[in-house]
Amino acid sequence: CRERLEKQIAFIKEIDKVKSIFRRNRLIDDSRYENDAEHSWHLAIMAFILCEHANDQKLDVAKVIRMALVHDLVEIGVGDTFIYDLEKRASKAEEERESANRVFGLLPDDQRDALIALWEEFEARQTPEAKFARSLDRIQPLTHNASTQGHAWKKHNVKRHQVEAVNRCIEDGSETLWAYAKKELIERSVANGYLEE
Amino acid sequence: CRERLEKQIAFIKEIDKVKSIFRRNRLIDDSRYENDAEHSWHLAIMAFILCEHANDQKLDVAKVIRMALVHDLVEIGVGDTFIYDLEKRASKAEEERESANRVFGLLPDDQRDALIALWEEFEARQTPEAKFARSLDRIQPLTHNASTQGHAWKKHNVKRHQVEAVNRCIEDGSETLWAYAKKELIERSVANGYLEE
Repeated sequence: CRERLEKQIAFIKEIDKVKSIFRRNRLIDDSRYENDAEHSWHLAIMAFILCEHANDQKLDVAKVIRMALVHDLVEIGVGDTFIYDLEKRASKAEEERESANRVFGLLPDDQRDALIALWEEFEARQTPEAKFARSLDRIQPLTHNASTQGHAWKKHNVKRHQVEAVNRCIEDGSETLWAYAKKELIERSVANGYLEE
Repeated sequence: CRERLEKQIAFIKEIDKVKSIFRRNRLIDDSRYENDAEHSWHLAIMAFILCEHANDQKLDVAKVIRMALVHDLVEIGVGDTFIYDLEKRASKAEEERESANRVFGLLPDDQRDALIALWEEFEARQTPEAKFARSLDRIQPLTHNASTQGHAWKKHNVKRHQVEAVNRCIEDGSETLWAYAKKELIERSVANGYLEE
């Protein structure tokens, strides 16, 4: 029992590092960039506030929340990859796998296996829970970019067709959230001059 | 449905503000202070990693996680209160109540009522879930202080007897975690010169 606890504490201390992994989007008040821990916290709350809009009404919300909480832990030692950098995203897969083995490997074996399986399920995007978790993972930075005059889009020269292509998967988890995102976040951002056609 | 979603999005945007409410403890690498969103994310993960150590083995872990995620939202507009400032903690209760009504009040009525009830349950510290959530809320900053040479203790002149008095409630949620905290975090910090007798 004591050895289990020591391993769990080592993991809990290690994951503090995601608070120092910064993303491309700003906070809503535009004061600074957001980090992975804050982003994950936000998704977890969104999961239970927005679950009524999921395509699959029988999905396990508690699992979506756990997925949201741990989905970015693999970025420890690897860093955040900009969602519009398709080339880098492909090459990062192997590094993230190694990071998953190392970070989750700090835990007792049963918990390591459970969390790696949860992360793999998220990455595979096949189950209702993984699809909805990904919808949240995409609509959250959209909201932040639309609220900060398109900060990341402008800075990285991202156009409307790229935003639509990368975020269309929101629909796989929630048609309602995709309809909202298209109209209120993307179209409105174009109309406001935050996002180029 | 559209009106519900608009309210939910307004809430989701509003709670971004907890990312700018800073606490007294540092990150584990001592690079800066931690904010409430990061702290809440950390507690939520700790809830499912450490739940086997809860006194009550029948507790609803998913509820503990939701409590952890929202327990500090009432600090929006009020700010963080240092856990060792007992006087201020008492006087803040009314402000936090008003903040709860305002922040959760952005949601549709059913979700507002559910989250206010969840926050009240956390504050009342009577149920197994609330007791365990509080254990986590206390042991997390202890871990951070012990990892950063007692930063907040030294800065605010906090002594060992205060740390023990304020954190003894960890025992109500988990005797195992309190035994660990007393020995590995408090006693060791005293031995290392991070915390004064």
